Amino acid sequence: MNGATAIMESLRAAGVGVCFANPGTSELHLTAALEDVPGLRPVLCLFEGVATGAADGYGRMAGLPAVTLLHQGVGLANGLANLHNAMRAATPVVNLVGDGATTHRGLGAPLESDVAALAAPMSCWTRTATNAATAGEAAIAAVAAALGPPGGVATLIVPADVAWSPAGRVALPAAPVSRSPGSRSAGPIGPDTVLLLGGPALLARGLAAAGRVARATGALVLAEAFPGRLEQGAGVPAVDRLSGDPVGDRRRLAGHAHLVLAGASAPVAAFARPGMPGELTPPGCVVERLDGDPVAALEELADPGIRPAIRAAAPLPVRPADTPLSATTVAEVVAAHLPDGAILVDEANTSGVALPAATAAAARHDLLTNSGFAIGLGLPMAAGAALACPDRPVICLEADGSAMYTPSALWTHAREGLDVTTIVLNNRGYAILRRESRRVLGDDAPSATSAMFDLSAPDLDFVALAMSMGVPAGRATTTGELATRLKQALAEPGPHLIDAVVPARY
Amino acid sequence: MNGATAIMESLRAAGVGVCFANPGTSELHLTAALEDVPGLRPVLCLFEGVATGAADGYGRMAGLPAVTLLHQGVGLANGLANLHNAMRAATPVVNLVGDGATTHRGLGAPLESDVAALAAPMSCWTRTATNAATAGEAAIAAVAAALGPPGGVATLIVPADVAWSPAGRVALPAAPVSRSPGSRSAGPIGPDTVLLLGGPALLARGLAAAGRVARATGALVLAEAFPGRLEQGAGVPAVDRLSGDPVGDRRRLAGHAHLVLAGASAPVAAFARPGMPGELTPPGCVVERLDGDPVAALEELADPGIRPAIRAAAPLPVRPADTPLSATTVAEVVAAHLPDGAILVDEANTSGVALPAATAAAARHDLLTNSGFAIGLGLPMAAGAALACPDRPVICLEADGSAMYTPSALWTHAREGLDVTTIVLNNRGYAILRRESRRVLGDDAPSATSAMFDLSAPDLDFVALAMSMGVPAGRATTTGELATRLKQALAEPGPHLIDAVVPARY
Repeated sequence: MNGATAIMESLRAAGVGVCFANPGTSELHLTAALEDVPGLRPVLCLFEGVATGAADGYGRMAGLPAVTLLHQGVGLANGLANLHNAMRAATPVVNLVGDGATTHRGLGAPLESDVAALAAPMSCWTRTATNAATAGEAAIAAVAAALGPPGGVATLIVPADVAWSPAGRVALPAAPVSRSPGSRSAGPIGPDTVLLLGGPALLARGLAAAGRVARATGALVLAEAFPGRLEQGAGVPAVDRLSGDPVGDRRRLAGHAHLVLAGASAPVAAFARPGMPGELTPPGCVVERLDGDPVAALEELADPGIRPAIRAAAPLPVRPADTPLSATTVAEVVAAHLPDGAILVDEANTSGVALPAATAAAARHDLLTNSGFAIGLGLPMAAGAALACPDRPVICLEADGSAMYTPSALWTHAREGLDVTTIVLNNRGYAILRRESRRVLGDDAPSATSAMFDLSAPDLDFVALAMSMGVPAGRATTTGELATRLKQALAEPGPHLIDAVVPARY
Repeated sequence: MNGATAIMESLRAAGVGVCFANPGTSELHLTAALEDVPGLRPVLCLFEGVATGAADGYGRMAGLPAVTLLHQGVGLANGLANLHNAMRAATPVVNLVGDGATTHRGLGAPLESDVAALAAPMSCWTRTATNAATAGEAAIAAVAAALGPPGGVATLIVPADVAWSPAGRVALPAAPVSRSPGSRSAGPIGPDTVLLLGGPALLARGLAAAGRVARATGALVLAEAFPGRLEQGAGVPAVDRLSGDPVGDRRRLAGHAHLVLAGASAPVAAFARPGMPGELTPPGCVVERLDGDPVAALEELADPGIRPAIRAAAPLPVRPADTPLSATTVAEVVAAHLPDGAILVDEANTSGVALPAATAAAARHDLLTNSGFAIGLGLPMAAGAALACPDRPVICLEADGSAMYTPSALWTHAREGLDVTTIVLNNRGYAILRRESRRVLGDDAPSATSAMFDLSAPDLDFVALAMSMGVPAGRATTTGELATRLKQALAEPGPHLIDAVVPARY
């Protein structure tokens, strides 16, 4: 058995079931091994950012890492932006990077680069496999590091000669590390407390515990603005999210003396603006982080006899079918048609502002957002989520600008027959830059008409783009058209795309 | 004047004329400054890999750096693969990366990452601007570092508050550093010598000097396998290229006792294979590097009274118009219709093997290849070359797999009205992996039919893809169709794409 097979067999033994691959010449033995290991599904991606974003989506929904297969330093580089997003969401990912043979290092071959240095900023763990005999153990260590604590992106670099050398051995999976809830240090929780939830605390169990604490103490419970995975909708314990708007969020947190972080980080403004502080925590507020497992910690605080507030289904406005699409009306149509158990991927950016209000009381679903702000996550993440949960429909709300970072994910949607319905909110511009430009620069320059923020010359035709990669597609400009196309897409198996033309908001 | 304007004005003063931009929220002041500086043309790219690849193409043809404008660590990451290619070609590029405000660092904002660490592996020079007063000087230093010697990618990181702070000053351009030809140390040049040319030695002046040396001494003159820029065609001093096939290249170099490197690196196999040495230089061969300016060094060696061998136009085979397309017949059609003064961008990979033979005696042109093997360079590089040389037609030979890394470059072709004709050699597979798989793994596994090397399920429709981004496109399956479409594309201004269906070669 060579090192490559030892790695793939060990990953499979540790529960890894999918490999998102964009291999190259130095990964030929790893590719061969991948195709030989039963139960490890190879999924070809046409760009590394698709592979890493899909691994993020898979890990968020499966709770287990997928493995990537990337080609040397430059392939890794193409995948780094979505690895950054996975790190921010603390998604377990085993990031497997092939490298040139150790005997080939230092010769100045075209692809030679410092793979470990490139991996470090977007990994919680990085190791280079040094020989075939221990390559299986290295793969097991990568899975353990990905699962944590703390968990995240574990990068394993495999030189080609480690992969092709004999004497590889399959290693046994490590026992999972369990986290205790830890102890609290700060004062009592009361009406002046904010419980800020993130990470695993945003699934139903954590939400229920937090809801019980809120009922018993009067504390305000909030979800972080950009959750990796949030369970929400009718029947799920209710939670409001921070909005991501620093002015509004600062106002919301004002007056609280005590901030308890349960799986979340202290809230900060995403972007710096001249003269504006970055922290959103009120001055003088005591910040306490729940150590260990935040869900267990919340359950220790909660009285199990109390019933948390549960979200009830709420009616949405009924509008005529010829209502033009807008951020608000798209959100309403999506919310109204969301199937029970759907997975909602949100990379709609500025066009997604109306989603939280519209979807909070829709049918029960999981919401995945872009925790790391590296755009180009949505389409790949939808692919990974669909592979993790083949029985659940995925709806991917995608912005036009963001869609153009990793458009080839659509080909993977088609190739794997994934039940993903992508709605491109096409406002023909980088609306977030127009909005921030006005906020930061005032009415000076560059104006909202800056050519650098304009995607309308030429217009992007997302219908043709999707069809070029085998995804059936159509256009919608009214709520009636969007509803019709959405229902049809949800009724048919396989991927679809709807180019939803919306006005720019700024 | 704020730091952003100081940077842009200083770059302009140093001769930088184009900015390939994909800005984000932390680059708003830089974007505003960019749009305010006359003579600095902003070119919007929808993905950072397009911006960096375009800067590479621009720098190769202009001999002056373009500047990029990228968004924090993740935007830089998306551009790293093509920066790697630029480094390998020693192309001057000023790589401008915005970062969060210094006051925002350490807060854990979503986009925070270690920008300098990410830049280092693909840069010859990296600096973070520390205040507005010296930001202009930092920009000038970046231009000087990009131009070298040694030259390459100079990364300047600009925190948002350095860009928006007042007291910026425009700095004056640095005096160019000239290189002396240096002195030789090894024995006489004779019939047992190989003169291996790379970098600037591959333009007409260097080729002429090398041709004179060859005539006088009997030395073998060769060009490196993957030149950044090679002048060739009828009327240009003749030079043969190494093929990039390690077996053939080793055979070609065998028996030579003396290798003189003029702007080139010692030849190595691009990929390691089990049991095969990486170096291609014959055992015992003395390797000598011409220090300093390789063109001046060659001219010192050459007798100006000798006339170098000049390439004469050579007839190409005439084939019936219904001849199916293949790597060979595509190369013949391209060579036959290449306009005088064209720029030929080659990222055809395995489908490009017939190009050197077919184009060597075509009309005079510049050939740009992928020196760094990070695929996804062709379409962006064509954009940059077209902007550097607006009066010269650009023909971009692109492989189907490679095209899918940076497809949005087509939108920039359309937006800027660039005279680029892209021919996608569409063999519906990663043919290079099929070929290497057979060479490395034998007939074992994965077979040439590995699903990981297959791009045919579903087929990629490059006509629809191009049209989705505003580029007129058509398909060709015969030499007659390709010739007709190519002539039409060359006769019309603006970009075109031809989806040339070719059989897979492996």
